[in-house]
This record gives sequence, C-alpha cells and structure tokens, in this order.
Amino acid sequence: MADLPQALDRELAALLGPAWLRDESERLTYAYDNSRQLAVPDAVALPATREQVLALVRACRAQRVPIVARGRGTNTTGATVPVAGGVVVSFERMDAILAIRPDDRCAVVEPGVLNGDLQRALQPHGLFWPPDPSSAEFCTVGGNLACNAGGPHAVKYGASRDNILALTAVTGAGALIHCGSATTKGATGYDLQRLLVGSEGTLALIVEATLKLTPLPPERRALRALYRDVAAAAAAVARLMAQPVTPAALEFMDGECVRLAREHMLANGGGADLPAAAGALLMIEADGDAETLPHAVEALACAAEGEGLLALDDAADAAASARLWAARKALSPALRTIAEGKINEDVVVPVSRIPELVAGVQALARASALPIVSFGHAGNGNLHVNILYDPADAAQTQRAQAALPQLFALTLALGGTLSGEHGIGLAKRDYMPQAVTPPTLALMRQLKTAFDPDGILNPGKLLPP
Amino acid sequence: MADLPQALDRELAALLGPAWLRDESERLTYAYDNSRQLAVPDAVALPATREQVLALVRACRAQRVPIVARGRGTNTTGATVPVAGGVVVSFERMDAILAIRPDDRCAVVEPGVLNGDLQRALQPHGLFWPPDPSSAEFCTVGGNLACNAGGPHAVKYGASRDNILALTAVTGAGALIHCGSATTKGATGYDLQRLLVGSEGTLALIVEATLKLTPLPPERRALRALYRDVAAAAAAVARLMAQPVTPAALEFMDGECVRLAREHMLANGGGADLPAAAGALLMIEADGDAETLPHAVEALACAAEGEGLLALDDAADAAASARLWAARKALSPALRTIAEGKINEDVVVPVSRIPELVAGVQALARASALPIVSFGHAGNGNLHVNILYDPADAAQTQRAQAALPQLFALTLALGGTLSGEHGIGLAKRDYMPQAVTPPTLALMRQLKTAFDPDGILNPGKLLPP
Repeated sequence: MADLPQALDRELAALLGPAWLRDESERLTYAYDNSRQLAVPDAVALPATREQVLALVRACRAQRVPIVARGRGTNTTGATVPVAGGVVVSFERMDAILAIRPDDRCAVVEPGVLNGDLQRALQPHGLFWPPDPSSAEFCTVGGNLACNAGGPHAVKYGASRDNILALTAVTGAGALIHCGSATTKGATGYDLQRLLVGSEGTLALIVEATLKLTPLPPERRALRALYRDVAAAAAAVARLMAQPVTPAALEFMDGECVRLAREHMLANGGGADLPAAAGALLMIEADGDAETLPHAVEALACAAEGEGLLALDDAADAAASARLWAARKALSPALRTIAEGKINEDVVVPVSRIPELVAGVQALARASALPIVSFGHAGNGNLHVNILYDPADAAQTQRAQAALPQLFALTLALGGTLSGEHGIGLAKRDYMPQAVTPPTLALMRQLKTAFDPDGILNPGKLLPP
Repeated sequence: MADLPQALDRELAALLGPAWLRDESERLTYAYDNSRQLAVPDAVALPATREQVLALVRACRAQRVPIVARGRGTNTTGATVPVAGGVVVSFERMDAILAIRPDDRCAVVEPGVLNGDLQRALQPHGLFWPPDPSSAEFCTVGGNLACNAGGPHAVKYGASRDNILALTAVTGAGALIHCGSATTKGATGYDLQRLLVGSEGTLALIVEATLKLTPLPPERRALRALYRDVAAAAAAVARLMAQPVTPAALEFMDGECVRLAREHMLANGGGADLPAAAGALLMIEADGDAETLPHAVEALACAAEGEGLLALDDAADAAASARLWAARKALSPALRTIAEGKINEDVVVPVSRIPELVAGVQALARASALPIVSFGHAGNGNLHVNILYDPADAAQTQRAQAALPQLFALTLALGGTLSGEHGIGLAKRDYMPQAVTPPTLALMRQLKTAFDPDGILNPGKLLPP
C-alpha cells in the first residue's frame, strides 16, 4: 500500500493540526475493529467540525485517497478496517448532543456521541432512542446508523433506520447534503436519509443526525418460557407477534444454549431453577405503566401458553426479572468457555421459518462436527448463529469456515437474508451476489457511483469487487 | 405532443392485445387525477403480469417514450397526469393478493389491489396494513407506496414507508429488481425499497410488494378535547406525544374549522353539543383490548388536560365515538359549501411549531382576504391547510395562488417540509429548490439517472426541470 501523497499530508496537517495523526503507534489503534481483522491506515483524522470533514473529503478525492469513517470500531464485520489504506476518519471529537427537543420527540447529535451517553441525557426527559446493541456503552450513534444497528428492543421499537428523521452528510463527491426533516412524516422527494442508514460509510460521512425519540416506558417485566423443542417455541413466537400487545423484547435460545448457560450458571452458584431438558427458551418482556403492565404481561403469558410449553416464569419485580434474564446474559461468557474461535452471524428469516433455520443449523453442526448454537431476536426472526471452533486446530477452522456459506445458503433458501443488524462489511461482502440479484446489485453499484464517483469511501466494503 | 412511433404501437398491441388502449374515449379516462389537471396520454396499457411490464418498459425505452404508472388517480398533486404524453400504465388488472402470511405478519400483493379490499382480506386474520388515506376504498396499495401515503393512524403506526418489507420493481432502465426481504429487520446492502416508496413512479414501476402488517386492535375509543386557542391545543399535542401511551389518532381542527363544522352540522340537525367559541379541537383516539383500553383512555385524558382546555368528552361506546368524530367528518362537506375552489396542502412542521404555523396561516388569510383553514394529523405536525376561493373570481384566484408560496416559505422557516403524505407531483415540484439544498437536489437527480437513464418514467414530476 502506497503512503499518502506529500501534498495531501501537508494540506491535512495544516487543516487538522494535532488532530491529524501520522505516528505508527497512533495509527495502529485505528487499524482494527471487533472483526479481529487488521490493516493499518496511512493516517488518522479526528475532525471537530463538518467544515473539516468537507475539506478533508475534497482533498482526499482530489488525490483518490480512501476514507474510512469510524465510530468506535465495535462492529463485527470488518466494516471499519482500512483494507485499502488511506485515512481513517474517527468521529470521537464530534460527540456533542446539539439539542434535545422533547416536544418534538427528537434529538440532534453529532455522529461521535456514544449511544449510552445519549440515553443518559435523554432519560430526564422521559425519552429514549430505541437502538440498543449490546455494545451500547461503547458504540457511537454514527456507527449505529452506518450499520443499521438494532438490539433486543427492535422488535417493538425498530432498528436505527426506523428511528431517524434527518441527516447531514458529506458525500464521496465532496458535497454537503441535507436529507429529511425534523418531522415524523415526510413526502418531499427521495428518502436519502434511510438510504444512508446501513450504507456502512460507502456513500457519505454523516456529520449530524436528527433522531426520532420514543417515550420511555416507566416499567418493564419479564417472562421466561421454556419449551420442549424449537418448533413449540417458534409457534409461540408467531402467537406472541400476532396479538396486539407487541412484546418489548422477545429473545430466543436453542436447547444447546440453555444447557451451556445452565452449566455456566451452576459453576458460578446459580441456575438451579433452569431445567436441563428444555429444547428452547424465550425471554418475553412487556413494558408500560403500573396500570397497563399487568394486562400486557397477562396477554403475553396467554400467547406464550400452548403445545410444548414446559414452564412459564413471571418476574414479580426487578430482581426477579434480572434472575430470569440471567440465563440469556450468561450465554456470551458460557460460549467463550467452550471455544476460542467463534464465527458470530446474525442471519434473519421470516418468523415462521425459525424452526427450519434452527433444525438446519443443528444438522450443519452434526455434519461439521462442531458446536453451532442459535439465539437472538426471535420476534424479528433475527438469530445469532455462532459457529464455535478451536482456531489452533486447522481442520476445525476449515470446517467452521466451510459451514458459513452453507448457513447463508440455508437462510436465503428460507426467504431470509444475510444480516439483520450487523451489516455486510468485509465479512459477508462476497455473499452479496447470492442474496441480491445481479440487476439489483448492479443498481446498488450505480447508486454508489452517484454518491462517490471515485470510489474513495470505504472501498472494498458491502459491495463485492 | 407527437403520437407514438408506429413500430412501438404495433409491438405493444401484440404484447397486450385488448389491454392496449388507443381510442381517445378510453385514453381520456386516464388523463387526469384528483389534482383536476388533465393531459391525454397517447396510449394506455393494462398489464396483467410483471413480464408484460418489463417488455413494455424496454420497448418504450428503446423509443424514448414516457411511461406514467397509475393506481386509481386519487392523488392530489398531478403525479399521474401524463403531461409529456406517452403511455399510462394502469395496474388495475394486477390487483391480486398473492399471499397473506399471518405468522410472518406480512402480505404479498400486486400493486393494483385496493387498500380497502386488502384491509377486508386481512381482517379475518386479525391484521391490518396501517396506511389509511381518506381515499382508502378507491386507491391502490401501489399508489399508496408511490406517494408514501399516510392517514390519521400514521401517528401510531407509521405511513407507507414505515410499513414495507420488500418490493419487486421494473426500473426505467428496464431492469427487474428485488429490494428487501420478507423480514422485519435487514442490513444487507442499500435500502432500495424505502427509496422507491414516495418516488412517485419516477424511478421504477412496482410490480409486487411485501407489506408489513400490524395486529388489529380489538377496540377503539375517542376523546374530543376543545381548547381556548391553538397554542393550548398544541401544548396538549406535545403532552400527548411525550407520554408512553401513543394515541392511535390525534387530529386537529382550528377554530374556523370548528365553526364551519358546527354550522354544517346545525343545518343538518346535529352539532348542538359543539361550543361556538372553541379556538381549536383535538380528536384523540385510543386503541387496545377491553382490559387496557380504559387505562389508555385515562392516560390520554390526563395528558389532554391543561391550561386552556374548555371541554373534554369521552365516548362511552361506538355510537358516542361516532358522534364525537362527526365534527371532523363534517369538515370536508362544510368546506365545499363555502367555496368552489380549494387549494389543499399537507405541509408538515415539528409538533412544537404548530402554533406558529396556524398563527401564520391565519395572518396569511387576513392578508389575502381569503378563508384559509387548518386541520389534520397533529401528532405528526402534518396539517392540511386549505386555501378557499371562488375560481370564477380572477382576483380571488390570483390571491389564492399568491398565498401558496407564502405558506411553503412559512413552513420551511419553521423547520418543516412541503408534504407529509400527498407528495410533490406537479403541484409542488417548483418549490423543491426551496425545500432541498442544491447539492441534495443534484444528488436526487443523479439517483434518478441511475434508475432511469433516459428519463422516461413520469417525466416532469417531483424534480423541477
């Protein structure tokens, strides 16, 4: 990879001063994300204003130097790894909450604000921004928007794309664009703001976002339902989603996940209340106020009942709720204990196809002679399929890698798609032609060219070469 | 306007047989929409399959002949008037409901299905598709999607763009594209389906849509709140939207609308319960089941209370609810009695700016010496501003037309936008440069070119020349 043109280096050093990083030790910090891939950028820019972003993009475009936008690098797909070199633009100094407008149920933020910091600032106003990835404390709103991040509460409140009103962004052509308006309805021309959400920094760099906020429900209560098998749990998911009380969260764990979580909890002095034989578990959350919550819980409990239900536990209070959620929370540490290597996917299928997906994953596990477990956001049909292996074992590693295309083929055959909330990045880029037809992919490339005529924004990501 | 090339005429007659209309009397039927503008197309095509649509687009593109997609022409902006001649493609023969999948909460439909027919087919499954324009009985789902149609229930359930999962469409380049998937979450590449929604047939012709469905609430109940003035009503709207029980509808009428509706009802033997002096009215609807509905009504009633509330009426049953809604429903006929001419806009502003919008409209009415009334979907800040005039009076007509740009300037100054649910079409096309910055508009044009390189799809609409 060639180093930066000297003229560009001087120009951007003058523009950014100490916010233009060229030392290798500094650049290394921005070389990787949660995908564990690594590529050291030629420089790192920490702009403080949209004017700096605009000047930077124009300068880089003139020299055809790649630009990779970065929040905090929590994504799992390699979307922020600068594989083509160039400049990483980290938005850590553009982290202001510019306005909270409770009457308009919106907030105006810079892209670098942390999701968790935003939620804390909104809480006194009785509002929240729905996307709640597990990395919420460490990830930025700009990164959430770039990846269309979701989380457990997306089943009721939507993912990032459902919670955006307006964006200001700098395209790869060096144009400052204003998309949408701070209103919950709009039919004024093409919807560019939702197109930018999920585009992984390949079309434009977001410099300001107007977020749609939702009133914070004052109370939550959890139900834990254990089922004989996945089919019984999936039928319950369909019943839960077909009645008018939408669950605030509807999380699924397959039998192997229940077993692993139970073992992990037993080893740590808990988990005795979890039956060993359950084939599937659902965590069902209701939210609301003190008066409506009992009715909501009752409606959800009623929908959870049915053929194959082994046990239904209702949390009486927050402590009991935490006990019920313990199994779900124990899962990630439990998975780490059984394998060093983990391919964590987030495929999504229509809710009715969950049993076939899980059965197919179990068959794939047998055929691959590897543990493969499924859990996640059942109300959206969005399952985290984790292929577990020992990276020190070449044969296991090869089998794990070979299982991945089979998982995607299964998902697509069930009418699903590659990613529900992680995005494509590098990791799934080469599977795009299986998920998207050639004319549709060709059109995506043409849109990319309209926004970024020289292909300088996050090259090599999302679209296959 | 030149007639069609003979070769194209022969080719499409052979393709479509009796579904290729060339008689003037037949063409005249497809020459206008609810904008009252008129332009006779050179031909009308009534395709029955996506293959026919694809062949038609490719044939027209080869000859650079314009194509205007049409549902049932209920739109008010001239979006389906074929001002550049060419072929109107009416989807009336592609009106099948291809699948209703209750477990996946989705329906797969052809574009020509009527909104009302779809709702009736969904009802036995306990589901509905949220967009509910007042023309629901006569308008098509394809038209709803093309215009991003909303309605009173959008405040809780969203407009068309919020209720789409996947689209199959034919671009102006003659490519068949498949956008999105039948899942409620997706992060697989660029979101083309939401980009097509609201694009008014300028990018592609929709040949199949997978719609996101919502469980039908078993019961509804209405509250009618009368306020001293618009500011008091707007403050109530902000309180109503800031608490966790989102109203299923939140409709506003200004004082002039209340007075007109009251007079109309009195002349027809009703309306005696409506005070003459109210400065504003809110219709507030709650929905839910028998157990939660009373609590929801109570929460909404509590939020409706406050400074300036004159009266709050709660409907005990469906008949009482209908009586409360009577004033809102009397409005359209009442408006017809005072003026033949009506410019009906659907501007949208942030909720907190409603008082300034209504005050500005009232000032505009005084300055124009014309009745101008405001009512509509307050929860979204989406008001129907109606400029009333006598079209036989040249001076009045001129003043009405002169008031329109002032209304748009006011709306934009308040941080709002031109249209909430009607779209741009011809009527607002020339105001786009005021609502959208030059670089953003230039990018919209580039996207248009990517989808429709020869500009054959609905030329002259949405984007200014």
